[in-house]
Amino acid sequence: MSSPKMEFWYEFASSYSYLSVMRIERLATDAGVDVQWRPFLLGPVFLAMGWNDSPFNIYPPKGRYMWRDLARLADKYDLPFRLPTRFPRSGVLAARVALLGVEPGWVAPFSRKVMLANFAEDREIGEADVISGILSDLGLPARELLAAAVADDNKLALRRQTERAAELGLFGAPSFRIGDEMFWGNDRLEDALAWAQRTTA
Amino acid sequence: MSSPKMEFWYEFASSYSYLSVMRIERLATDAGVDVQWRPFLLGPVFLAMGWNDSPFNIYPPKGRYMWRDLARLADKYDLPFRLPTRFPRSGVLAARVALLGVEPGWVAPFSRKVMLANFAEDREIGEADVISGILSDLGLPARELLAAAVADDNKLALRRQTERAAELGLFGAPSFRIGDEMFWGNDRLEDALAWAQRTTA
Repeated sequence: MSSPKMEFWYEFASSYSYLSVMRIERLATDAGVDVQWRPFLLGPVFLAMGWNDSPFNIYPPKGRYMWRDLARLADKYDLPFRLPTRFPRSGVLAARVALLGVEPGWVAPFSRKVMLANFAEDREIGEADVISGILSDLGLPARELLAAAVADDNKLALRRQTERAAELGLFGAPSFRIGDEMFWGNDRLEDALAWAQRTTA
Repeated sequence: MSSPKMEFWYEFASSYSYLSVMRIERLATDAGVDVQWRPFLLGPVFLAMGWNDSPFNIYPPKGRYMWRDLARLADKYDLPFRLPTRFPRSGVLAARVALLGVEPGWVAPFSRKVMLANFAEDREIGEADVISGILSDLGLPARELLAAAVADDNKLALRRQTERAAELGLFGAPSFRIGDEMFWGNDRLEDALAWAQRTTA
């Protein structure tokens, strides 16, 4: 029998996506669930709800709380965290590169390094040299991958993936899908994996 | 040594408050934490963020997801759930009555019955006869309590409690506070109790 599958929709600019990107591989392996990594962009999804910025910036009490909550959760999960001096940072380039890593299988370690750069090292993940350095650290051909990332077909692929997210009713990140069942938020990662196990068993 | 204390801020109209109202007493007892029940109104808090309705109504994809999420969580916690035909229902009268029950100690069973009426029995908790019936079921003097609930001093007390919530930076319900540490959402109930235990130990 094949393993249960779960889609993992995340955005590199998203603070709670950071937690799930760091946690998901070990939890999914333990649960025997195959994770299908789906980087996408929250910006267009938020725009459709009338937000031209992160809701954490639009609603300051929510934003203040989110950063405190994130620090506590990072502590609980034993993950590093440093308050970013810029938020949100553009996740466009990182998402374009991540798409290229889905097939060859380096999307997970690449995504973790980008998330650590954003939320633990306070680095500008929107800039090509930061992404290039991460690719090189992973032993990947940075120059070729950056060129492929901004080629028209790959830009279109990310646009389509983001449109697909909106069609599926996604409104935030991280989100998890098993068949038509959707779970939203890092808080639901364990529930989503349990659902994947149950419904495929 | 006295027990650790935790404030529990909740709103009778709030779907996720339902889950916490039903769960908190047993979990807090097990944790050895004293719960201070703080009914308040989300309406004025939401208005300050520019929302004149529940965000679950303003943003339909969030609303659709919330009801599915609530049904799944009720199942997980073994709580009854029926999709309310009206949402949100006014929690004003229930909150006024609940305030009266804090000192004499019937606020918890009263709050559970109101929440069950709203989210498991699809009853109009904004109506005086529903609240009256709940008080009578608890063996409480319904007529006197309803009169006291709408007396000026008690209406003012609820208004002040709601203003206090905004001053504290609350932006949603349920919320939990231990000293100045705030936790938001039914998902954080366990973390909040653990925090209360740790910081008072």
